[in-house]
Amino acid sequence: MRAELVERMNTMNGEEPPKRSEIKVVIYGVGEIGGRVAKLLLKKKGIRVVGAIDMSPRKVGKDLAELLGLEEPTGVTVSKDAAKVISETKPDIVVHATTSFLKDAYSQILTAVEHGANVVSTTEELSYPYIVDPKLAEKLDSAAKEHGVTVLGTGINPGFLMDTLAITLTAVCQEVYGIEVKRVMNAATRRVPFQKKIGAGLTVEEFTEKIRTGAITGHVGLEQSIAMIAAALGWKLDKIDVEPVKPVVATKRVESQAVKVEAGRVAGLRQQAHGIMDGEKVITLDFQAYIGAEEEYDSVTIKGVPEVHEKISPCVHGDLGTVAVVVNMIPKVIDASPGLKTMKDLPVPSATPEDMRTYLGR
Amino acid sequence: MRAELVERMNTMNGEEPPKRSEIKVVIYGVGEIGGRVAKLLLKKKGIRVVGAIDMSPRKVGKDLAELLGLEEPTGVTVSKDAAKVISETKPDIVVHATTSFLKDAYSQILTAVEHGANVVSTTEELSYPYIVDPKLAEKLDSAAKEHGVTVLGTGINPGFLMDTLAITLTAVCQEVYGIEVKRVMNAATRRVPFQKKIGAGLTVEEFTEKIRTGAITGHVGLEQSIAMIAAALGWKLDKIDVEPVKPVVATKRVESQAVKVEAGRVAGLRQQAHGIMDGEKVITLDFQAYIGAEEEYDSVTIKGVPEVHEKISPCVHGDLGTVAVVVNMIPKVIDASPGLKTMKDLPVPSATPEDMRTYLGR
Repeated sequence: MRAELVERMNTMNGEEPPKRSEIKVVIYGVGEIGGRVAKLLLKKKGIRVVGAIDMSPRKVGKDLAELLGLEEPTGVTVSKDAAKVISETKPDIVVHATTSFLKDAYSQILTAVEHGANVVSTTEELSYPYIVDPKLAEKLDSAAKEHGVTVLGTGINPGFLMDTLAITLTAVCQEVYGIEVKRVMNAATRRVPFQKKIGAGLTVEEFTEKIRTGAITGHVGLEQSIAMIAAALGWKLDKIDVEPVKPVVATKRVESQAVKVEAGRVAGLRQQAHGIMDGEKVITLDFQAYIGAEEEYDSVTIKGVPEVHEKISPCVHGDLGTVAVVVNMIPKVIDASPGLKTMKDLPVPSATPEDMRTYLGR
Repeated sequence: MRAELVERMNTMNGEEPPKRSEIKVVIYGVGEIGGRVAKLLLKKKGIRVVGAIDMSPRKVGKDLAELLGLEEPTGVTVSKDAAKVISETKPDIVVHATTSFLKDAYSQILTAVEHGANVVSTTEELSYPYIVDPKLAEKLDSAAKEHGVTVLGTGINPGFLMDTLAITLTAVCQEVYGIEVKRVMNAATRRVPFQKKIGAGLTVEEFTEKIRTGAITGHVGLEQSIAMIAAALGWKLDKIDVEPVKPVVATKRVESQAVKVEAGRVAGLRQQAHGIMDGEKVITLDFQAYIGAEEEYDSVTIKGVPEVHEKISPCVHGDLGTVAVVVNMIPKVIDASPGLKTMKDLPVPSATPEDMRTYLGR
């Protein structure tokens, strides 16, 4: 390749002086994911964490560094006054990570929007909110348009593995008849709270009771992923069936560092959901997380012309992946036209350039 | 899910009356791919083939149906007068499939643009034209903006498997250090002209001679795919190295229906290309097509945090996939902002709804 072309290409790849000063970010919710996002952003160039919001009395008033286990203070003090933080710091974008549920996220996100900030949120139900509460979704969309900002709910799942990636793969198909997506995780490699959350180590009776009381809820997002796939393909579903969460019972002794599961006890859980069209299961999502899974993978199978059999093995690590997707979508959300978006509406997702500003305004 | 939500979702999925009449398409180049695109479009709803352009005296004046082997006439007569066809039929989009090379495609695409038509083209070099001829690329971009239309070069490869899909998968990564993409095809399952094109059945000497004379050219697009990946990640490459095409020599007798390859003869070809940054091979593409490949696959490996090991097996069929990608991008190209685009700039690709109009204007 000729030298001047390389030079030209590099200019196009971000060699130009950045068109703006740093991207300013407020972290709304300094929990496990919000904290990890903050940590990653502190390492990136062209982006600066200018504020942090959390309701926990244990966190309010502390420097972000203390919560993240960093030695150097960040100069950012956690506050519980969202409106004040956002109005004073004027962030380009708020990274919101406080809840899985739209109704709880709504007013928090609205605060950001009304102060002119874009929002990328890990709220699972926001990844495709129209099937949760169309009125709230419409209100968010209107508010975002009114204030000229963009709102996106995303993450690794929902947000990527069981929806965006499956949608992307249909691009090679002339016809699509059905889609099956599986995510199988060996919970032994995950955080201990996650292992507890999926019921590892319980008896089947204990598991069933915890399902009944809502202490174990299964995965939030299967409905959203199915609805997003259907919307991308223009499929009119009769309904979305989410099956009850089922225990995966260990057939032999399995264990993680933290949890030992005897044969006959619960190693984790499995949940399936189906998108039904004309009486047929045209979309099936199968989520499994248990200690001792022999193969961890994410697979997409498309029945169509041609058929597609795709697999990521081992499966993508949930926490690492969610933090990555959230951070990587920041410049695309800032650049998008105003309104409430879903992943299928935005440009092809990708890792961000080292200096995140270089993406903007291209 | 509540019934009113399903109804609401279906409205969002395209139940509304289409916002426009049929999408009008002109086929520019009724060869193998253009012909297959036409055939697929004739089966879809909401889209109509209104014109066909080809230079071959063997095709001009004939009804498209005759060239496609269809019984019912289409009413579309192949013409060699591109400007006349496009100005008279006023298509929303021109599907352009005449050449692999930008310099040959340029004036043809410009004709479409200047008559106000969007263009989706299979021209391999157009998938990332900035590294081929930045001046031509800029001219196309300016012309497209001036006339308010969008131009895209795409296909299965380049256009999807070795670039867009790899870019998409980086979205789950917090850091990316390197990317390796492999495409391994068993040529026995492909068209006979393709088998000949890759030198199957030749002696090594004959193969080498055909490489020397340009009768065998290898795959066009590796440079484009590397440049697109680098641009998406904001990587400033030192250079792109495309290795010489190498013969894959059969170690035992292999055969397709049309070609028998004795051990020691050429079963097909292999070509590698590298994107070099700071002296390191950070992007490697490895394209292999030969008779007797034991596993056919498309794989993407990302070195990063986390690592990603992804594979589509068997590999996506090239002709089926190219036709699909071209057709599936039609509504997204029509809806995009004006200018010359590459796949990474457009929304997440996907199969189109049955009625292709329903995608538009959402």
